[in-house]
Order: sequence, then structure tokens, then C-alpha cells
Amino acid sequence: MLKRGEFDQIDQQAINTIRMLSAEMIQKAKSGHPGLPLGAAPMAYTLWAGAMRHNPFNPRWPDRDRFVLSAGHGSAMLYAMLHLFDYGLTIDDLKQFRQKDSRTPGHPEYEHTPGVEITTGPLGQGVANAVGFAWAESFLAARFNKPGYDLVDHYTYALCGDGCLMEGVASEAASLAGTLKLGKLILLYDSNNITIEGSTELAFTENVADRFKAYGWHVQTVEDGNDVLAIQAALSNAKEETTRPSLIEIKTIIGYGAPNKQGKSSAHGEPLGEAEILLAKQGFKHPEEPFAVPEEVRARFAELTAEGIAKNNAWQSLLGRYQQSYPEDYKAWEEWHSDELPVNFATLIGSNSFWQYTDDLATRISSEQILNKISPVLPNLIGGSADLAPSTKTVMKDKDFYSPDNHSGGNFHFGVREHAMGAIANAMAVHGGLRPYVSGFFVFSDYMKHAMRLSAIMKQPVIYIMTHDSIGVGEDGPTHQPIEHLAALRSIPNFTVIRPCDTRETAAAWAMAITRSDSPTAFILTRQNLPLLQGSGKGAFRGGYILSDDINPETNLPDILLIATGSEVHLMTEAQKVLKDEKIHARVVSMPSFEIFEEQEQSYKESVLPPSVRVRLAAEAGSSFGWHRYIGLDGDIISIDQFGASAPAELLFKEFGFTVENVLEKARALIAKK
Amino acid sequence: MLKRGEFDQIDQQAINTIRMLSAEMIQKAKSGHPGLPLGAAPMAYTLWAGAMRHNPFNPRWPDRDRFVLSAGHGSAMLYAMLHLFDYGLTIDDLKQFRQKDSRTPGHPEYEHTPGVEITTGPLGQGVANAVGFAWAESFLAARFNKPGYDLVDHYTYALCGDGCLMEGVASEAASLAGTLKLGKLILLYDSNNITIEGSTELAFTENVADRFKAYGWHVQTVEDGNDVLAIQAALSNAKEETTRPSLIEIKTIIGYGAPNKQGKSSAHGEPLGEAEILLAKQGFKHPEEPFAVPEEVRARFAELTAEGIAKNNAWQSLLGRYQQSYPEDYKAWEEWHSDELPVNFATLIGSNSFWQYTDDLATRISSEQILNKISPVLPNLIGGSADLAPSTKTVMKDKDFYSPDNHSGGNFHFGVREHAMGAIANAMAVHGGLRPYVSGFFVFSDYMKHAMRLSAIMKQPVIYIMTHDSIGVGEDGPTHQPIEHLAALRSIPNFTVIRPCDTRETAAAWAMAITRSDSPTAFILTRQNLPLLQGSGKGAFRGGYILSDDINPETNLPDILLIATGSEVHLMTEAQKVLKDEKIHARVVSMPSFEIFEEQEQSYKESVLPPSVRVRLAAEAGSSFGWHRYIGLDGDIISIDQFGASAPAELLFKEFGFTVENVLEKARALIAKK
Repeated sequence: MLKRGEFDQIDQQAINTIRMLSAEMIQKAKSGHPGLPLGAAPMAYTLWAGAMRHNPFNPRWPDRDRFVLSAGHGSAMLYAMLHLFDYGLTIDDLKQFRQKDSRTPGHPEYEHTPGVEITTGPLGQGVANAVGFAWAESFLAARFNKPGYDLVDHYTYALCGDGCLMEGVASEAASLAGTLKLGKLILLYDSNNITIEGSTELAFTENVADRFKAYGWHVQTVEDGNDVLAIQAALSNAKEETTRPSLIEIKTIIGYGAPNKQGKSSAHGEPLGEAEILLAKQGFKHPEEPFAVPEEVRARFAELTAEGIAKNNAWQSLLGRYQQSYPEDYKAWEEWHSDELPVNFATLIGSNSFWQYTDDLATRISSEQILNKISPVLPNLIGGSADLAPSTKTVMKDKDFYSPDNHSGGNFHFGVREHAMGAIANAMAVHGGLRPYVSGFFVFSDYMKHAMRLSAIMKQPVIYIMTHDSIGVGEDGPTHQPIEHLAALRSIPNFTVIRPCDTRETAAAWAMAITRSDSPTAFILTRQNLPLLQGSGKGAFRGGYILSDDINPETNLPDILLIATGSEVHLMTEAQKVLKDEKIHARVVSMPSFEIFEEQEQSYKESVLPPSVRVRLAAEAGSSFGWHRYIGLDGDIISIDQFGASAPAELLFKEFGFTVENVLEKARALIAKK
Repeated sequence: MLKRGEFDQIDQQAINTIRMLSAEMIQKAKSGHPGLPLGAAPMAYTLWAGAMRHNPFNPRWPDRDRFVLSAGHGSAMLYAMLHLFDYGLTIDDLKQFRQKDSRTPGHPEYEHTPGVEITTGPLGQGVANAVGFAWAESFLAARFNKPGYDLVDHYTYALCGDGCLMEGVASEAASLAGTLKLGKLILLYDSNNITIEGSTELAFTENVADRFKAYGWHVQTVEDGNDVLAIQAALSNAKEETTRPSLIEIKTIIGYGAPNKQGKSSAHGEPLGEAEILLAKQGFKHPEEPFAVPEEVRARFAELTAEGIAKNNAWQSLLGRYQQSYPEDYKAWEEWHSDELPVNFATLIGSNSFWQYTDDLATRISSEQILNKISPVLPNLIGGSADLAPSTKTVMKDKDFYSPDNHSGGNFHFGVREHAMGAIANAMAVHGGLRPYVSGFFVFSDYMKHAMRLSAIMKQPVIYIMTHDSIGVGEDGPTHQPIEHLAALRSIPNFTVIRPCDTRETAAAWAMAITRSDSPTAFILTRQNLPLLQGSGKGAFRGGYILSDDINPETNLPDILLIATGSEVHLMTEAQKVLKDEKIHARVVSMPSFEIFEEQEQSYKESVLPPSVRVRLAAEAGSSFGWHRYIGLDGDIISIDQFGASAPAELLFKEFGFTVENVLEKARALIAKK
């Protein structure tokens, strides 16, 4: 590692090599963002070469420092460094930048490229991700560290630009990081005064340094982004300051070294052009042949990694001694970091008590009860709410609240910051060791929708507990009543939505969410009480199932399928009884999860929803959008395709047609039309 | 109006009356949020009685000061004031708080209650709305004011709490307001240190005042929220400071006057209880009978409004003189504020030139051309982008850029702040006089989804220009490729989504969006070129239409329906030709807008999609979610139900099956299955 004060000509060549490899990758791809790599290469090199503890040969070392390229459009720079530091990317990989099936996609993708810690690109997310990493570190340190055994002791670094810092998600996360005093979080701000539309004078004249001071951060400024010694000093100070998160604003010139483009918006997001690259190479005295890496530069990178390897080895020894000294904690460490669930969890969900309930409950209360059964057997289950825990019922009673004075609390206060909450949870899931959940009112899932999308892209099993799921919200009115939100989440690829109809289905929802390892899950829960339904429960494991059947002996099929989710299922079972008296044979299908139902084999799906039965009626207190997959062109649905209203919930359900009478009327009409 | 320094016992009684009416409304409704009204009544009264220029008898006076209750859960306080200031709400209306069809819903709803300037409740939105109001004011002032004729000269006030200021949307908007130096924006911050989960110590220890100073705001603090004279002074200073927006942090006690609840989270969001209300009344020496308004208090409110009425009358005279002195500008004023579109616009879209195009263009370029035809005939069309105008192609070339030095520019720089952009556009639309559009990459519509929802709730014709609409984004990869976003927007009630297939349909999209007055519209546009298709164009006015038909003479119907939107339509027309040679008669339906198609009469819809034709194939480069409404249980769809990838766009379209060959294969399979 480069020590503070060390910096020679070869280091300068190394920086220029990062710059030129980046520019050449982008040129070859005919697509990409050269502005950031040219301006920020010195800070990135200084960080990776001197401050950051990492082992390229073991990118999954649990106690490595984390690096988040929040400005993910600067991916070429990251890939150039991953090549030079020998993370396993080859020059050929670099030449395949942004090409199909390459290891060097347009923006950094988690689990796609070794050394990429998290998927970034959507601006601002990475800043919040970094807060999540640092928070996870401090929680794990409090849980596992022992005197003389700092098993968890790493920094989180992020690099962001003006764009990231304009986004609200970054503001939310930075404010929270200040409150939490996350002292091992260090944010490098590539401050180049240029955005796509032009100078930051146009839309971003705030004093970022003062803003972060107001958040409670430790703030430094480096006036010249090429002044490596100043960057070293600032990094060193930031590491020493462990009671506050640190911002280092580093003034740079976008596209530095490209003589005709530097300092201009045009350097940001398009290839420089062959001629301009040649001029830059000449200016940097860099070899002109394509994708050149001078030998002495290669050798320098090899030297630089030696210390990281040694530290990784030392840590591995420490872990070995820890195993001897603290066998129980070591066992927990292994369990927390395992892909397997603890045996206790399987025992719990296999027990009768997990499934036995007698009360009619709001599913948010059901969820609270089940969460509190699961929490003791999943000590690494952590989570909280965007200031709504008393309403979303998401406190784990066997765990403390996390605070700057108590890092071992597994209950988190996120404040009124949905977007940051989602992005932080993503990072906690990616970090390793933890199973995060978050919660809020369903209607405000909008505020964090993009973070939810990123959970799905990264295949992270974040659990989203979304309560107050429809007009059942009642008096708070249309601004607080989700209508279209089920459709919005169901349409996200690799995202699982579960809307349980009672406590047993809520138990199934929790069991499924904990068991799923490669997709996020959202629970959509009611504010109001729902009846416990006969036959409900484990059928939910298949997404949709026959809750109550009534077969027409003549056809050996039901006459009508009544399909519903959540608070509407009981309307269907009540209607079924009345229809039976009218000699109409209705099957009630509870469909808590479209996604899980669609994962089932075709024969199962057809056994639940026989293709020949076209008389189908669905009910869901939300948009009909997406339901025709099950009701087809001949079915009908009781849904809400307008905004709600402010009134007591019971009145609204009547008003919007969610009554047994309306189900009967629609069912009879469909049968008559057949 | 109450002058600075004036404040007597009756004013104090007036404040207590606001408090007690609010508490009683909430108690009667058994639902609501008493904490804010009790704490913030003094600042609200001081503002409305002394600083704010308004005329209760003319709530639509164009030059009134605007008031935004960003903390919309404090609606009871707003309604109490609207009653007392005689905006037309009666005591009976107050007694109907949060009841069905009342004029006093749970959160303030625009165009539902006289005097409610904008729908609020979703935290943070109101702060951004206020920025939008103030921005609109300054633009309109620059356009219309003349020496001696300050036709547009009003302040925007907003009242927010800790929750609003934790939300990223508020941070984004505040930063932008500082950059723009919106000097007539005044934000009152009800700083009570309490949120739902407890003290702000838990999650919000930042120094808000310093943060706003960093944004470039003028900041004052009032230490005691009951100190009306100090609030008066601060308001007076804030009004005098017209070169910067002003924040007034006012320290209050949540639930003030409720002896057992004040200062606690429990005061926030549930009725105080009859006994506690009684104690509060006794403490305030307020009459104990329900919903009491002391006579002298009524009289005071009547006095207070006199000046507002006079000012409104004076303004009306001014407008009359303006009409004489500046007849052309007056005409423009009337046009800008009219619900009718200017004749020039009808002429334009009726002209042949509006519909004549010859080039294959990316629809974002088509949109740019059409925008620049429309802009000159709609001088009050204003808008911009979240730092992506060079990519979204949304600059109006006949208009300047707005800046602190040039308030007359109609092109706006929003910075990288999608969420604030949407909320600001909502306020600009609500303000009156303006037709706003905003733009960004479609995938980041997620960031502003809730603002889009609020456009729809408020029935505001904001235009959202969303480009880079699918895997056509290419190399930027999955983080930048929208997949589920069409479904997300289509499912919002009262929201119109249009995905045109070529330049003529893009022209239709613009014509429809401008013509629609009561719903927002989103254009979903390509990055890449699309062919101009024969027969495309005005058919889009019906949402979906037969672009190219081929009828089987035996059945007098097509054998198969090929339905597509945007960049996939041309695949269908090409496939149609091949199928024709195979004696398969295919109808190509272009379906740029589900919503507009669904607005058509049933007979039209059935003429386009005959119910008896069940062989249906759709294609859209996005999620299949929602498409079964048109393809039913028997159809098929070429769609993308996974995330995209980083690669050149042409490769991706092939990879994901968007080829004529694949359309043919699927079509033949469906025909064979029939």
C-alpha cells in the first residue's frame, strides 16, 4: 500500500493508465462516460492504492473495505482499476466494455463482475447504499467483536458526483448517517461543476460542504483533484475521524487531459474520439498503442496489493483464533454468513404453533405476531420503518433499537425517508451477514420504488412490509389509499408480492419471504381486521390455491371461479355459500401471490384455474390492471379504477362494491351470460 | 389585517379557537392529527391574519398569496381557519370532518374545498409545490408586469414539519429554490422535535437551519412558537428579503395545551379524547360547549379579511387599467388564464404541415420537432428536464432559459431532481396561467412516481416526456432500461400514457396531451430511430386503431389480431405482409394509449378488436403485465418479463425476440392452435 506522503512518477503513470484505459474502452464501445474517469482517476487510485484495505484475490473477504461507485456511469474507471489491481478482469474484458454478455457492462452490476460491490448507476442510490454498508458494519462489529478480536472493522468508501448529491435519496441518507454518527463512512465527492445540461451554476449552486456539516458530517475540501498528497492527507484525516461520517469534496476538471473537451459538458457522456484520445495520451506521455499498460505500472499495482493480501491472511488467522476463544459466537458468525437458514427456523415453521391462530386480526397485526416468533430464531433479521413502526407493527420485541450509543440494536429508525430506507436495506442485504426488512404505508412505496427495483435487479431478499393496503385506510383519504400500487410492484421482474387474506396466509408469507434467497418480497397488509378463513394457510406456498371448492357433478368442474386476494377473499367464501343454495357451484381461489403462482408447473395452475372454465370473477380492492391474466376476456372483476375517498373504511368498501351482494350480482350476471 | 406589533387578547382567543375547533373535529371524526394544530395555530393565525394577502370571498383571485399546508395531516387546522376566515366552510362542514362526501376530507384536496390551494399529505410534496408556485409567480411577473402595473406580485407560504424536511423531495426542491433565488417563497417550519416513532433525536439530529443556509436561503429562528410578535417580526423580515427564499424555523410544542399529551408522539395522530379536550379548553379559558366560536373572535376574523378584500378590489381595478394600457398583454393574460386553447393551436393541429413528415426518426426527435411547432402558439407552455434536455430533446428554441437573472425564460433547468421536478410541475399547473411539461429518462419515472400520482389525483394536465423507453437504451444496461414502467404508469387512475410508433403518432400524442385538461399525460419515446408507417397518425386520437387491415373473406374478420405499441408496431406491419402470402389474414392494431382506447365507446372498441377473434398476438418491449386485457387467455405476447442487459440496442431487440421472424413464429403457432 501507498503510505501517506508516498507518490512518485510511476504512481502518476498508474493514474494516467487508468485514465487512458477508460477512454479507450469507451471509444471502442462507441458508448460511455469518459468525463469522470479522466477527472477522478487520481482520487480513485489514491484511495485504492493507499487507503483502502482490499484483497483482489479474495473479493468476498468479509472484512474488506467496501467501495461504492455511486456515480456508476464512471464504470470504465472501475473496470480499469479492477483490471490493474488484478481482480481477474482481462484486457479482453475491457475491450468488451458494454458488449453483450461481457463482464464489463455499461453500469457496474453486482455479482456480475468481481470487485463490484453493488449495482449502481441510478444517481444517488450509491450514497444511500454506502450508508447501508457502514451501518451494517457497525451493527456486525457490535455483535461479533470481542476485546482483541476486531473481527468486523472496515471502512465504507463511496465516490459520487454532483448528480448524486442533487438527488433526494442521497440527502435523506446523508442526514441519517449524520444522526447515526457512522464514523467509518467516507464519501469522496468528485466536484467538477459540470452536469449534462452545463455548469452547476444552472441548477446547483448550494454549498455542499456546509450542507454536510449541517448533517453532522466531518467535511474537508481538496482544491486540486490532481493533488494526490492532499487527497492522501484528507483520506487519512477522514479515517482518523471515527465519530462522524466524512465528506471529502475534491475539486476536479471533468475530462481532464482531453485538451478540447476538458471542463465541458461534452466530456461527460460520449466517447472522446480517436484524435482527442491521442492528444490526451501525448499530453500524459502515455504509450500510444491501444490499451497499453506500462510494465513499471503493472509492477506497481502488484506491489500495492501485497499489503491487502497480508491483511486478509491476518484476518483469516484472527478468525481461526476467534473460533477457539468464542466458539458460540463463531458458530453464529458462520450461521449469519451462510446461505442456509438456521435449523431453528425450519423447526419453527414446521411447528404447529406457527400455524395456529384463533383471532380475527388485521394482517399488519398478524405480521407483528409472526415477526416476533421469527425474530428470536433469526438474530440477524434486522429492520425498521420510515417513522411508522407503531402503525406498521414492525418492532421486534426481543431486540433493542439501534442508536449511536447502542450499535447492537436490530430495530432501526429510518426517519421519514422511504427512498433512502430502501437503498440502505439493499446495501445491508448485499453486505453479508444480515437479513433486512423495511416498512411503511403501502401508498408511499412509490417514494422508494426505484430502490425496490434495485433489490430485484440484484436478487436481494429484502422484505418490504407495506401496510394500510387500500381504501381500508379510511379517513386519511385518497392521498393515503393505494390503488395502483399492487400493479406497480407485480410488474417488476423478480419481485414477489404477497397479499395474505388472514393470519395463516401471513405466516406463509413470512415463511416464503425468509426462505427465498434471490428475490425481494413485499407483504401487502391491511390496517383493518380480517376473518380467519377455513382452509387458509400453507396453500399460499403455491401463490394461488383452491381455498374452498364446489364442483358441479355434471361437468366435474366448478361453474364459476371466484378469485381474490387479501381482504377480498372472505367476500368470495361468503358468496360461495349463497351461490351454492342457488345451485351455482363456485370455486374460491385465494391468490396471495401472482408471482409465486406463476412459478408453479402448468398442470398445477390449470388444476386451480381450469382453462375451460371461463366464467371467472375476481375481486381486489385496487386497480384491475393485470388481472385479465386470470379473468380473460370473458370474466369480470370488482376493483377500484379510480382514486379513493376520505371516509370510514366500512363505508368505502360498500361504496366501491366490495360486498357479498355485489359479488353475487356480478357472479349471477356472468353465469347468465355464459 | 393585523399589523406588525398588533396582538391582543382577542387574537389569542382566535388562536385558541383554531386549536379547539381542530381538536373537536378530530374527536368527532374519531380520526385525525391534533398535534400540529395545537402547536402551529399561532404561526398559522399570524400568517393568515397579518402577513398573507387573501380574499376569502374570492379564493381564485389570481394574485392572491398562496398557502401550502405541506404537513397536510394538519388539515383540521386549515379547515378551522377556512371556516373562521369565512371561505364558506360551515360549522357543519367541520363536524363532517373525514366523513364521506364532506368538504373536509382527511387531507386537503385541491378543488374540493374552497381555499385549499393544492392537495397535500404525502410528506415533502408541499415544500416542492411551494417552490413551484413561487417559480410560476416569478415567471408570470416577468411576462406580464409593466412599470406601475405589478399584476403578478404575490408570495408563496408553506407550512411544514420535521417529516416534510426529512423527505428527499423537499431537499431537492429547497436546493433548487436557493439556486433560483426565489425571494418570494417563505417556508414556516413547525419544529417540534417529535415524529411518530418519538423524538427527532432518534433519526433527525441535523441542523436544519444550517442546511437551508447552505442552500442559499435566508434563515430565521423563532424560539417560542407562542410568541406571536416574534413570528410577526420574522415574517416581516422574510417578506423584505426578496433576493433569497426564506425559512423560518419556529420551535413549537406538539399538542400544545393538551396537558397530558403535549410534547409527546401520542399527540400526533389520534384524537385527544373528550377529557383531554376539556382540560385544554379550561387551560385556554375557551368556552366548553362544542364547536364554540366566541362572538368577539368572529368579529375579529371579519375585520381581518377587510384588507384582503380591498386589495383584491384594487387589483381588479389595476387589471382594468392594464387592459386599457396594454391591450395585447391583457389579451395574452386572458388567454393564458383561460380553459380554452388559443385559436392558433387549433389552426396548427388542423394544418397539413403538422402531420407531414418524411423521415424515420427516434420519437424523442419527433417530439422535439413537434414541441417546437407548438411552442410558438402556446407561449405559456413551459418546461424542462432533470438535467437531461440534450438527451430528452425538450428545449423550446423560441424561448429563453429561466435563470435568476432572466425570469422570462420558459425553458427550465431542474437539475438531477426528478421527484421535485414532478411536484414543482404540479404546482405550476395548479397555479394558473401555465402549461408545464417535464422530462427525463423513462426508467427514472420511478423517482417521481408519487408526484405523477398527484398530477392524476388533482386532474392536472402536466405532460411527462419520458424518453429512452426500453432496451433500445442499449449499452447503459439494465439499470437504465425501463421494463415495468409502462405497467406502473398505466395502472395509475386518471393518468394517460401514450407510446407512439412514429412521428405522426407523436404529433397526435402532443395534440391530445395539450387538448386534455383534466389528466396528466406521459409520452413514452424511443432513443432509436423508428420507421414512418403508412396509415399512422390521427387514428391515435382513439387510443388504438386499425393501422393496416387484412380481412378473411370467408369469415369477414381477420384471422389474427397483431397488437403493438411504439417501436414494436413496425414488426407487426412487416409480419402482416409475410402472413398474407401464407394466406393468413392479419389485422395490425396500433395501440399507443390503453387509457384513451378504453375511453371509446364499446362498439368502436369491438370494431377494432372483435370479441370473437381470439387469436391475438401482442408485442411490446416491456412487461406483459396488463396486456391480457387485450390478448385474453388464448393470446400470446412478445414482451420482456425480466431485466434488460448492457449491449448495443439492435442485438438486444433480437435477443429478446423482437424480430419479424419471432412475430411470424408466434403468429403461426397461435393460428395452428386455434
